[in-house]
Amino acid sequence: MSCVFCSIVAGQAPAIRIHEDDDYLAFLDIRPMVRGHTLIIPKAHHVDLTDTPAPVLAGMMALGQRVALAARASGLHADGSNVVINDGKAAFQSVFHIHLHVAPRRRGDKLRFAAGVLLRRDPAREETGRLLRAALH
Amino acid sequence: MSCVFCSIVAGQAPAIRIHEDDDYLAFLDIRPMVRGHTLIIPKAHHVDLTDTPAPVLAGMMALGQRVALAARASGLHADGSNVVINDGKAAFQSVFHIHLHVAPRRRGDKLRFAAGVLLRRDPAREETGRLLRAALH
Ligand SMILES: [Zn+2]
Ligand SMILES: [Zn+2]
Repeated sequence: MSCVFCSIVAGQAPAIRIHEDDDYLAFLDIRPMVRGHTLIIPKAHHVDLTDTPAPVLAGMMALGQRVALAARASGLHADGSNVVINDGKAAFQSVFHIHLHVAPRRRGDKLRFAAGVLLRRDPAREETGRLLRAALH
Repeated sequence: MSCVFCSIVAGQAPAIRIHEDDDYLAFLDIRPMVRGHTLIIPKAHHVDLTDTPAPVLAGMMALGQRVALAARASGLHADGSNVVINDGKAAFQSVFHIHLHVAPRRRGDKLRFAAGVLLRRDPAREETGRLLRAALH
């Protein structure tokens, strides 16, 4: 399968899952900008804003909101989130299966979001996933 | 009126409008990250993801998608867009009336989005507004 997100949906590639329902999947970004950086995808393969139906975007955003609020309520103690769709390669889209980023933020974290100079890893990915799932469900 | 976006909705503060309907307004960001940087707001005052109903977010996103596609089709010749909600002060939200950013991008524009080091002005704001409106409507 050539799309890594379709492979995750199919259970053929690993991911730390935060939420799954019939139509959407939320999982931790393997290269987080911040701790708890989550991607929300439709299970159906759509590329970007040119081919994704508005109702699918609405569903992605509804789940993204839930994850952002869960990050505030969770043991990650987020004070807010950046909620982002990068539409197209020119906008830094790197996987061409549409996805919504939810990047939990804390006061004073001094993140320069998307500046591309960050060490994108989380030494406690499993724990991060557990904290978000616990707050969401 | 203490909320600048409510003032824009009421016609009491100036803005270059891209689209208006009963429930939503799209206008150019007065401090654009890139040319054509547009904000989508609900006319009703909501603060952030903690108090904005999911259907309102869906409507913001639907209009944001239209603006992003219009930017591609327009004389701005965008190749994509960053579509962003900054939820909370910790996430760089600066006006506490929820808004969706649509930042049109072009290949090679080398924008370090939100890096905070950009000169945020557009010497041809009126023309930029005209190009987006023409492509949207
Ligand atoms: Zn896919
Ligand atoms: Zn307002």
